[in-house]
Amino acid sequence: MSTNFLKSYLPILNWLPGYNRQSFTADGMAGLIVAIMLVPQGMAYALLAGLPPEVGLYASILPLVLYGLLGSSRALAVGPVAIVSLMVASTVGAFAENGSADYLTAAIMLAALSGVFLLAMGLMRLGFLVNFLSHPVISGFTSAAALVIGFSQLKHLLGFNIPRSHLITETIAHAVTHISQLNPVTFAIAAFSLGLLLFWKSKVPGLLKAAKVPDGIANPLSKAGPLVAVVLTTVSVWAFGLNGTAGVAIVGDIPAGLPPLSVPAFDIELARELLPAAILISLVGFLESVSVAKSLAAKRRQKIDANQELVALGAANIGAALTSGYAVTGGFSRSMVNFTAGAVTPLASIITAGLIALTVVLFTPLLYFLPKATLAAIIVVAVASLIDFKTAKESWAYNRADALSLVATFVAVLTLGVELGIVVGAAISIALYLWRTSRPHMAVVGRVGETEHFRNVLRHEVQTHPKLLTVRVDESLYFANTAYLEDQLLAHVADHPEIDHLVLIMNAVNFIDASALETLETLAQQLHDSGVTLHMAEVKGPVMDRLDRVDFAHHLGQGRIFLSTHEAVQSLTGGPRSLAA
Amino acid sequence: MSTNFLKSYLPILNWLPGYNRQSFTADGMAGLIVAIMLVPQGMAYALLAGLPPEVGLYASILPLVLYGLLGSSRALAVGPVAIVSLMVASTVGAFAENGSADYLTAAIMLAALSGVFLLAMGLMRLGFLVNFLSHPVISGFTSAAALVIGFSQLKHLLGFNIPRSHLITETIAHAVTHISQLNPVTFAIAAFSLGLLLFWKSKVPGLLKAAKVPDGIANPLSKAGPLVAVVLTTVSVWAFGLNGTAGVAIVGDIPAGLPPLSVPAFDIELARELLPAAILISLVGFLESVSVAKSLAAKRRQKIDANQELVALGAANIGAALTSGYAVTGGFSRSMVNFTAGAVTPLASIITAGLIALTVVLFTPLLYFLPKATLAAIIVVAVASLIDFKTAKESWAYNRADALSLVATFVAVLTLGVELGIVVGAAISIALYLWRTSRPHMAVVGRVGETEHFRNVLRHEVQTHPKLLTVRVDESLYFANTAYLEDQLLAHVADHPEIDHLVLIMNAVNFIDASALETLETLAQQLHDSGVTLHMAEVKGPVMDRLDRVDFAHHLGQGRIFLSTHEAVQSLTGGPRSLAA
Repeated sequence: MSTNFLKSYLPILNWLPGYNRQSFTADGMAGLIVAIMLVPQGMAYALLAGLPPEVGLYASILPLVLYGLLGSSRALAVGPVAIVSLMVASTVGAFAENGSADYLTAAIMLAALSGVFLLAMGLMRLGFLVNFLSHPVISGFTSAAALVIGFSQLKHLLGFNIPRSHLITETIAHAVTHISQLNPVTFAIAAFSLGLLLFWKSKVPGLLKAAKVPDGIANPLSKAGPLVAVVLTTVSVWAFGLNGTAGVAIVGDIPAGLPPLSVPAFDIELARELLPAAILISLVGFLESVSVAKSLAAKRRQKIDANQELVALGAANIGAALTSGYAVTGGFSRSMVNFTAGAVTPLASIITAGLIALTVVLFTPLLYFLPKATLAAIIVVAVASLIDFKTAKESWAYNRADALSLVATFVAVLTLGVELGIVVGAAISIALYLWRTSRPHMAVVGRVGETEHFRNVLRHEVQTHPKLLTVRVDESLYFANTAYLEDQLLAHVADHPEIDHLVLIMNAVNFIDASALETLETLAQQLHDSGVTLHMAEVKGPVMDRLDRVDFAHHLGQGRIFLSTHEAVQSLTGGPRSLAA
Repeated sequence: MSTNFLKSYLPILNWLPGYNRQSFTADGMAGLIVAIMLVPQGMAYALLAGLPPEVGLYASILPLVLYGLLGSSRALAVGPVAIVSLMVASTVGAFAENGSADYLTAAIMLAALSGVFLLAMGLMRLGFLVNFLSHPVISGFTSAAALVIGFSQLKHLLGFNIPRSHLITETIAHAVTHISQLNPVTFAIAAFSLGLLLFWKSKVPGLLKAAKVPDGIANPLSKAGPLVAVVLTTVSVWAFGLNGTAGVAIVGDIPAGLPPLSVPAFDIELARELLPAAILISLVGFLESVSVAKSLAAKRRQKIDANQELVALGAANIGAALTSGYAVTGGFSRSMVNFTAGAVTPLASIITAGLIALTVVLFTPLLYFLPKATLAAIIVVAVASLIDFKTAKESWAYNRADALSLVATFVAVLTLGVELGIVVGAAISIALYLWRTSRPHMAVVGRVGETEHFRNVLRHEVQTHPKLLTVRVDESLYFANTAYLEDQLLAHVADHPEIDHLVLIMNAVNFIDASALETLETLAQQLHDSGVTLHMAEVKGPVMDRLDRVDFAHHLGQGRIFLSTHEAVQSLTGGPRSLAA
């Protein structure tokens, strides 16, 4: 028992004992490939979050080690990701000047709060909360956030300042009206980087394969597009001094060495103001992380424990806060790369962390001339793939309510900002679900020929009986649909003054809550007062168990509960199989 | 068509043409009895709302006439009611000094806003919104509000000032610590009135019946308790001059004559601040009104049109605002009295209005010496019957989640106040519903003997097949339970590495939303990747129609959709009825 308990909280105990050289080779290769992606991405996302580039690298060391020790996924690659970075920028930007010391302090505090919140959720086993974000809401949110992120990079691509705004129309308008400020060299670097990245992404893997380059070289090489862009543009800026009169913005000094371990300054007032955003960032980050972890685990018949994931991500974020990093989570594309590159255990992540640490210690001087335009191009190419109109189209074809919540979330994010947008989207999707269940499908049914089957009178050729109405209700009965049920049934009875019996067919009713129970009792009485007896048929076992607890049969009076609709009809119309009451 | 249209918006056209003398006698008697109740209640509830007593009478004239013309209920008695009065007091008390001209202005404005909101809801056919208040929430709310109302009258019963508070503990603490200020004469009047009212309510109808008093006299007499208390205590105060040195608080001057028709002063700022409360008051008032209207209509196989009720109540509240009245709705007890007294058409209400108008014109001088303690006693006796612990007990036995939402609402109203309390209660009940549906009941099933029936393996002696898992899911599939479904199914598969086929039995699934659809598609792929084929059985017609729209069968790959579980098992285990793939 205690071993299992330990294993569930320290998943490393599951894989470390059986670790071998073969696994190490696989993990080492995956760790290297992810590190090659992560160095430029980490800096780029830090830039997106409004933070110095080294913060993105710091967030890619200790958090990865902690996740590796605690996470239940074997292939998740944790670190800075685009949407969380955008949310950090949007939150912290409201409290502190971009680039100020307060800004960094607030971002670190946000990571700490997010870590504590995730950890608390995990320990309270509240992982299920994230399920209340529907896929269309997530799709609408992601597409809109990707657009906001893309346009936020316009200033780096064009080389002149554009005030931060979540309204992309404002960003575009500002860019167009100030286009005379365009820095042509910056723009050229951006265009070159974009072209290179797109070419690398779409063509290089195929070329390497055609050239029969061995996988051990081809795999890291095919993911090295960002690194190549970084190297080429950095060298160009250095060689031609483009950061001088040409005015290309560069990354500049990055402090060498590992970040010091330090407890972040705690400001209770700031913490309270940041908390709502920290909760949203945690939920969104967790959602991205757990989705990818699940889909990777399923491919190898492994299991993901959502609550353990919360604990591990919580620890990772606390680790980020302790080492001057910012909010991290499991990223979609890097995790896919880690998995396909062959990562078999979290040691791959720990190797990545080691390589990033090495970069921070040794190579930061090399990044001095790195143009911000290159990092912006890396962001734009990364988020472009997040924009997804296919889901909107498919939802429309399948179910209008889902399409509506997708579009509403998309519009809300673009007009109200990322935080409020996702809250509005989630509320709309829940409201639409409640609305749908509040108007259950109901059908008057009749007997098909001489069979024991009963079908909708509107869809099928069936027999009915003038004194008897059989109605099937296709939804669990609860407070929001109980008035509708009552209205519909009373309307049926008012429209058919000749009937003596009403049989409610309950085979699709999975639950009856107290409001619905009371309505059924009242309904039985009301129908009785107007000369109609209410019966039921095909009540499910668990539903019947509950009804028995409150002696519901008693409330039906003369009414009865039949095992099958056929039995009900036979009995009430005096058919050959009539049973004694 | 146009006649039907007119009839649906002017229900009076349904009953006026066939009106006869017999109906008039019945309506006249019911109108009289309700008027006898309404004169003291109207004044008492105005007092509860913090308004001069005549405002309660004004609210009992034009609103009743308008409801009579527009309402779809034939027996609903509209006017001031306890809970709405409490909500008016709680809202307006936050904006204006009790007893000030501003207070009255704000109360009238609140009625106007409520009227416009109800009317708009009716015209937009939003009556269904009120269904999202569950019965346990309403029960918890009503019980708590009744307690708050009862304790708010303590100051009138004891004869010394107690500051208004929604915390009854504060009210009690103040009363106890200041008990030396008790006015003994006031207290005596209160005690006498309470005794008289309770005696009248419990004993007088029986005594009248025993004495064989004819119904025409016994019926009004049995409802005349409040009137008798008013007459006896008013005469006592007048005869002994108790309003002098004895210090008994009396109603005092009531302006004689009908209220002038006047458009209320409109203050946009105030309107905006009052709007949230006006919406809540409208919803709560509508809920009380439509519940009683429905239950009365059902007894005579009549129909209530919820949206027409909104229109009629909206007009009634606008009428109240135009005649210096305050918010009204259909009251539970008075409507029951109206119905049992024999009201057959809304003319009964119009007769009641006429009698109240007559009272306002002729009899207000008689009410000068009416002690406020008597009115407080009338309120206390009226609301005592609203306190309901039975529902809490029954809910606990039937379904813990319902009991929890009842208790949470009760506690929220007592600690946070009526408005916030009901909002919190509604949110909790919706959250509990979502939580329940997010963890659907799922059962691995097996074949019962040699039959075609399949039952839960945990509950029944059934046969299963080692290569095949048949799982039934008892809930519609939507975003909140789709992750749970996926986790459960993947866990089953991970626990049974030997299986080749998973059959999902869908006969209790009434709907699949886009999130669940995507999960099923992903699941099919994930299972495929791990060597298991996903199949379905017993998919309902409307669900299948939707799945066909997006060519779902294609996503199942090798998987198939079977008409019955039996067919699935036979086919997949190579039984005698195996069908070609």
